[in-house]
Amino acid sequence: MTRVAVVGAGMSRFGTRPETLRALFREAFDECLATVDKGVAVEDIGEAYVGSVGFGGLQLGNLSALLAHEIGAAGVPARRVENACASSGFAFRDAVAAVRSGACDLALAAGVEKMNDVSGLHQRYWLGVSGETEWERLAGLTFPGVYALLAQRHMIEYGTTREDLAAVAVKNHANGAKNPKAQFQREITPQQALAAPMVADPLGLFDCCSTTDGAACVLVAGEDLARRLTDAPVWVAGAGAASDRLAAHERPSLTRLDATERAARVAYAQAGVGPQDVDVAEVHDCFTIAEILAVEDLGFVPKGEGGPWTAEGRSRIGGDVAVNPSGGLKAKGHPLGATGAGQIRELFLQIRGEAGPRQAADAEVALAHNVGGSGATCAVHVLTKEVPA
Amino acid sequence: MTRVAVVGAGMSRFGTRPETLRALFREAFDECLATVDKGVAVEDIGEAYVGSVGFGGLQLGNLSALLAHEIGAAGVPARRVENACASSGFAFRDAVAAVRSGACDLALAAGVEKMNDVSGLHQRYWLGVSGETEWERLAGLTFPGVYALLAQRHMIEYGTTREDLAAVAVKNHANGAKNPKAQFQREITPQQALAAPMVADPLGLFDCCSTTDGAACVLVAGEDLARRLTDAPVWVAGAGAASDRLAAHERPSLTRLDATERAARVAYAQAGVGPQDVDVAEVHDCFTIAEILAVEDLGFVPKGEGGPWTAEGRSRIGGDVAVNPSGGLKAKGHPLGATGAGQIRELFLQIRGEAGPRQAADAEVALAHNVGGSGATCAVHVLTKEVPA
Repeated sequence: MTRVAVVGAGMSRFGTRPETLRALFREAFDECLATVDKGVAVEDIGEAYVGSVGFGGLQLGNLSALLAHEIGAAGVPARRVENACASSGFAFRDAVAAVRSGACDLALAAGVEKMNDVSGLHQRYWLGVSGETEWERLAGLTFPGVYALLAQRHMIEYGTTREDLAAVAVKNHANGAKNPKAQFQREITPQQALAAPMVADPLGLFDCCSTTDGAACVLVAGEDLARRLTDAPVWVAGAGAASDRLAAHERPSLTRLDATERAARVAYAQAGVGPQDVDVAEVHDCFTIAEILAVEDLGFVPKGEGGPWTAEGRSRIGGDVAVNPSGGLKAKGHPLGATGAGQIRELFLQIRGEAGPRQAADAEVALAHNVGGSGATCAVHVLTKEVPA
Repeated sequence: MTRVAVVGAGMSRFGTRPETLRALFREAFDECLATVDKGVAVEDIGEAYVGSVGFGGLQLGNLSALLAHEIGAAGVPARRVENACASSGFAFRDAVAAVRSGACDLALAAGVEKMNDVSGLHQRYWLGVSGETEWERLAGLTFPGVYALLAQRHMIEYGTTREDLAAVAVKNHANGAKNPKAQFQREITPQQALAAPMVADPLGLFDCCSTTDGAACVLVAGEDLARRLTDAPVWVAGAGAASDRLAAHERPSLTRLDATERAARVAYAQAGVGPQDVDVAEVHDCFTIAEILAVEDLGFVPKGEGGPWTAEGRSRIGGDVAVNPSGGLKAKGHPLGATGAGQIRELFLQIRGEAGPRQAADAEVALAHNVGGSGATCAVHVLTKEVPA
């Protein structure tokens, strides 16, 4: 099978951005191009995969062609990949498959979202539809509500505390404070997190990710081209993905996401590594409980121990695994369709040792974990510094 | 490169269908499974690609996981592919790439749309957004309007007549009358077409495709598996795709779709065939002028001669190339996201000689042509009876 590497990656600053969807995409793409050490021509892009959920307040259809045109790649085969908040995790997956398939040597995986300049009602609607409709959304159960249920159950089964949840937020804000692209570049204290207004018990304001505008772009290439484009390719060693039932009540357990477990199993097996080998990970912390589930389901820590493990600082930069050094969805921000590609961009920097003050030491094996809905879709990728076997 | 074949294909009846989105998808999938001669297990599906534009009146998010669950494939990596009316043409493209990449041996490419049970306003909105927004949609130019401009220009440059346009509708209705899955199973006369109410001059009611509910599913497999699953695999010999500028005024010509030309060039080259070799084609006749542009841009006939060529009956079943033997978007119906997969299903039957009263004689080379917007995205596939070189 053709080996595939990430050869460039960029993102816009995440946050409240008054610029247009196109401008944000352009900002991410320009940075992505600039990171390709030896230069690359836009014309060499053979396929484009664009993740987006709301495509600009549901206003800009045929988005993939629109954005291909915007970056000077009109003509390239392009499509939108939509899988709720896992959209660009799957866009990345499909871009990797395109290169492996021989369809092209160089593919663009990207994501973009504008969330702040659509009306609240509209936004709640198109955010909400990514959840299960019949049993959850139409009954009034929003995403904070669903994740609150998972958190409550985790507390009952494993004794996880609100302080454990707060530890996730505190860590990720500390990391975000070191990320000039993050939406929230400030630290918070456990007391602030615990005293914040309640959103859906036990999840307070700081247990929830934010409303974010942003874009991220990644270029993947086949081995031969990758070696011509850069001296520091970041290899895609494993690519796993899975789906699951949408409704929480139809799943066997509320304290794990089966899609994460399945996707991780495939990604680890392909890469020939295990969770103990992972140095740095970007996981889908749409809510603090989601990071605790993730570090357990990905095997970093046994089921039920994610809370204390986090509270002990084991997932800080410098800990056992640096989890969400970018600040994660919590502090970096969560522009739905851009999140998966943004995770890859962070790990690209980490593996290359270019993450500055938030660099994880000796980052050689990295993992990206992108979830759609409350676990209905999931993509997991293992990236490595060493060439895969 | 791994050879890939279509091993099964099914569709729901297209039309005004009161059933749920899930039920329509199930209907298509069940037929698809039943067409796999030697049987196949749902569990063997390794990836799923679901094309849909409006996912049930924009109500059922995380659609790919929802539908994977519906067909008993919960867990399978699934994603929605959205490229306006070319959504499932690209879903098929990406499913083929998945198999070629080694990600799986068996992939599902599908599409589904419910259009009749959403409000008119809502429908016009989510149909309209697939067009160019800044210069066309917000100025009031709907899709009939855009295609009317293309038709007007074709008339000016090449002398194409309303009678030529009507010949497309008459032919496709005659074909649809032989298709028990078509939305309109009745013939029309040229007089009826010409006397119908004007929608956007020169396009009358019968120059426009309809509002349709429906679903279509296709299974593609790698060569070894394909040979175990069926004695009559339909080979994917060529897969081309392209994008283009969304706005008609930004393109060099109004009388051709560059995306069609580019996509066809790649597909023909991969398949080692030319337009003269094509026996049967399903082309994207969202409007009658679109079929005329398609038969020219695909090279069946020189530019400008598509109208008279059609009026002379050269694209009838039994003519030079049987174009839209299914009835096309015009008579079979156009459930946006399901159209591309529905085209593949028709050609699967044609290549296997199973198309009954609408069978094209000696169909050995077939072409599917699926367009998004007014040509901003396009996927072209060449399917063959003979194993590709």
